[in-house]
Amino acid sequence: MRFSFTVKELIELLGEASVDGPDTAIINGIASLDEAGPGDLTFLGNRKYKRAVPRTDGSAVLLPENYDGHPKPGQVFLRVANPSLALALVCEDIERRNRPCLEPEVHPSAVIDDSAEIGADVHIGPLCVVGAGARIGSGSILEGQVWIGRQAEIGCHCRIMPHVTIGDECRLGDRVRLHSGVVVGSDGYGYETVDGVHRKVPQIGIVTIGDDVEIGANTTIDRARFNATSIGTGTKIDNLVQVAHNVRIGRHCLFVSQSGVSGSATLEDNVVVGGQTGIVGHVTVGEGSMIGGKSAVHRDIPAGSKVRGVPVRPMLEDYRLAAFYERLPDLFKRVANIEELLESKG
Amino acid sequence: MRFSFTVKELIELLGEASVDGPDTAIINGIASLDEAGPGDLTFLGNRKYKRAVPRTDGSAVLLPENYDGHPKPGQVFLRVANPSLALALVCEDIERRNRPCLEPEVHPSAVIDDSAEIGADVHIGPLCVVGAGARIGSGSILEGQVWIGRQAEIGCHCRIMPHVTIGDECRLGDRVRLHSGVVVGSDGYGYETVDGVHRKVPQIGIVTIGDDVEIGANTTIDRARFNATSIGTGTKIDNLVQVAHNVRIGRHCLFVSQSGVSGSATLEDNVVVGGQTGIVGHVTVGEGSMIGGKSAVHRDIPAGSKVRGVPVRPMLEDYRLAAFYERLPDLFKRVANIEELLESKG
Amino acid sequence: MRFSFTVKELIELLGEASVDGPDTAIINGIASLDEAGPGDLTFLGNRKYKRAVPRTDGSAVLLPENYDGHPKPGQVFLRVANPSLALALVCEDIERRNRPCLEPEVHPSAVIDDSAEIGADVHIGPLCVVGAGARIGSGSILEGQVWIGRQAEIGCHCRIMPHVTIGDECRLGDRVRLHSGVVVGSDGYGYETVDGVHRKVPQIGIVTIGDDVEIGANTTIDRARFNATSIGTGTKIDNLVQVAHNVRIGRHCLFVSQSGVSGSATLEDNVVVGGQTGIVGHVTVGEGSMIGGKSAVHRDIPAGSKVRGVPVRPMLEDYRLAAFYERLPDLFKRVANIEELLESKG
Repeated sequence: MRFSFTVKELIELLGEASVDGPDTAIINGIASLDEAGPGDLTFLGNRKYKRAVPRTDGSAVLLPENYDGHPKPGQVFLRVANPSLALALVCEDIERRNRPCLEPEVHPSAVIDDSAEIGADVHIGPLCVVGAGARIGSGSILEGQVWIGRQAEIGCHCRIMPHVTIGDECRLGDRVRLHSGVVVGSDGYGYETVDGVHRKVPQIGIVTIGDDVEIGANTTIDRARFNATSIGTGTKIDNLVQVAHNVRIGRHCLFVSQSGVSGSATLEDNVVVGGQTGIVGHVTVGEGSMIGGKSAVHRDIPAGSKVRGVPVRPMLEDYRLAAFYERLPDLFKRVANIEELLESKG
Repeated sequence: MRFSFTVKELIELLGEASVDGPDTAIINGIASLDEAGPGDLTFLGNRKYKRAVPRTDGSAVLLPENYDGHPKPGQVFLRVANPSLALALVCEDIERRNRPCLEPEVHPSAVIDDSAEIGADVHIGPLCVVGAGARIGSGSILEGQVWIGRQAEIGCHCRIMPHVTIGDECRLGDRVRLHSGVVVGSDGYGYETVDGVHRKVPQIGIVTIGDDVEIGANTTIDRARFNATSIGTGTKIDNLVQVAHNVRIGRHCLFVSQSGVSGSATLEDNVVVGGQTGIVGHVTVGEGSMIGGKSAVHRDIPAGSKVRGVPVRPMLEDYRLAAFYERLPDLFKRVANIEELLESKG
Repeated sequence: MRFSFTVKELIELLGEASVDGPDTAIINGIASLDEAGPGDLTFLGNRKYKRAVPRTDGSAVLLPENYDGHPKPGQVFLRVANPSLALALVCEDIERRNRPCLEPEVHPSAVIDDSAEIGADVHIGPLCVVGAGARIGSGSILEGQVWIGRQAEIGCHCRIMPHVTIGDECRLGDRVRLHSGVVVGSDGYGYETVDGVHRKVPQIGIVTIGDDVEIGANTTIDRARFNATSIGTGTKIDNLVQVAHNVRIGRHCLFVSQSGVSGSATLEDNVVVGGQTGIVGHVTVGEGSMIGGKSAVHRDIPAGSKVRGVPVRPMLEDYRLAAFYERLPDLFKRVANIEELLESKG
């Protein structure tokens, strides 16, 4: 996206920045500290990069309030409570001014069943399908090539990207964002094995998704065996995540890419799941728990836990065990030395 | 799905249930033991939940034949050989009565090559593409937005969900179910590196899929370098699974979500692969083997093995090693104590 | 693909083969050593299969120059510098002769914005969408049901398979191949958590992909928070891989299936990442490094490293630690023996 604004406009946008330097430069790019040059806005969002601040060539630098040091000539330091959040505000403003204007319309190539109910100010892009009895809430956008199943319900101001599939009867709240390739309402993986043959257990439930949920590209959410697989308000799911049938995910949870949750697991509110982590079926992960990446959750986790590992343990314990593991060669040598000593003594 | 039936009708459907309680209640929901209320059918499918039976408020409870205990007033216990299977039968019946009726038709928005052969009673939904020379067997359903490549062959009574891609020349048996986002026949990942440049090895083979195979959402099955990547009859694959080129999967195998099989591996019949497990290329996993979740198979596995771990070992051995691992801090302390003792003794 | 050629034609195609046996047989299949029969070309591409050469029934066998042994009667051995590369040449030839001929055309069902620029000899298949201001370079093929976002740029001679999504403003070089279900330009996973609510950080950057890149089915490449997520020329990515926002991948890298790279990580040229491996954010993996499968990269990796494990270590060290781990039961027994001995001695 192309944009251009003065530092002065930037300061007005941020509201409460403490300004150290001139406010006249024109900003037309955003870059990391090491890559920023004249005309770029940059920021210290992660302490790890603190030493890059004095050498950055960016014209304006968003910094935490307690940052010591002074700008180069012509450069301006903007101290704020949360530089990352401040940058997000700037990006929101840029997006607002640049976002393609999708007028309310139903593209003539879309295939909309006569019995579907389309709310006010809805944009349905090219080659979408909206099934019988489906309902699309006002202000929602289906970019194009989207499948909305029969009797599915989409809330207001949702944004559904190309190649998303919403299965029959599934329900989305308001302001839900689904990225390309998301599948909501595929059949759960359920079979009864009789005489060596896996007989399908029909999956007659649905998926319900709360308000303000965002789901990343190619993530899959299975419909329930009965009742509903549910995802709570405010939860954000990254790309390529698997959510199995009858899983219940609370509010404001985070799932990093390529994690997976097996059937009938319950995740309470504010749970964070690291990338490539797996959670087995029928367990409960308590409110506010954090599960590290590449972990395996095989049992219930009490509220507020910080765990990681295969299987998960309290984080400090897992690090401690890993440190002992690294010292195994030394331990084997020490035991051999002891044995030798004892033998020599008879 | 909405439904309503009496317990009496339920008993007739199940055939051989042993009935303990009145058969007059009306059932219009299915729920787990803890969540069921009046009007709900519930079941004991997993011993883990046995203690929830006496406190359930469900109107009808499917139980194993050897379950002791008595229903509450107004509640009915139905003892059957396999409660999960019985529930599946009920769900099948509900599905049969509620399933949207997809009449044989070719939607006018579908793009069907003139040379494609479409069998009797086929339903081709909106915005599908069927390529030159493709064949669709009788009774099959392409929901919509499906891609069927050139010369591809789909058997009878298959069900292909939206956004599925079947590549050129790939072949499906009868009653195959493919969920949204499945890709059958993408190129295998094959390169010859010459002078630091990865030169593509053409993938001129196909994919063959047997009868009664079900494949979950966004799973990918690569076409062979030559000949065929094959999946045997009755095999069921979960979401987001990767099957590489020239893999051969036997009959009645199960693959849990996010597992992956590398090129030219052979899995014999009735193999079960846990979630997030990886199998390297060019190995053979013997008939009836079970591989735990999050494991790494790096060598041939004899028939009937039960293995897990990174790398896989017999399950008991893996659990045993894990238990020793947990005791490492204690072992280090014991060795230090011995060293101290020996030193003090001179 | 069906094909038929004589061994003589094969020899001409290969150029420099050393021929041992008659050149008259007709080849109409390709198979592995163990499966090849009369009429099949086979090859020794992996030393592991060396013992299968004397027993193969294939009519022609591609072998390394230093292979000892003689063909069966009627069989021909073709010794070449690189049998796998030779086979690739043969497959390329077969593909060239069999590949469906996709004439330049824009299918009438495609929805092309008036402001899009379509180069010469472009094939746009059925039900594609090409957004406002997008540019498609000459000779490129969009198979069908492809989404090209607004202002997106596709180079020359690219091949985009069905159900691919290219987001707004993203840019592809020349000869890029994207398999079905690939998503380029989904939003990065970025939130600022304020009072327990995850506030979206707009992702206003793009994705840039170099020349000769191939990306496997259902892989996802997120757009940058600002600037660009970039993938260098010649890099090949397998299926179901996750590349997060602001990741920079160098030239000629390889990513095996189900691996993932977190935000702002940098991978220099010629890096190889094994299957199901995860790389955390904000780290640098140096040029030419190889990372084994199922590993976790949690820190910077110097150029030329060969690492594996969770967390990664030099490969030999990881194998060594694993070997000690296997011997833990024995170590516990030895320590117990020592304790017993010391106790008995008082």
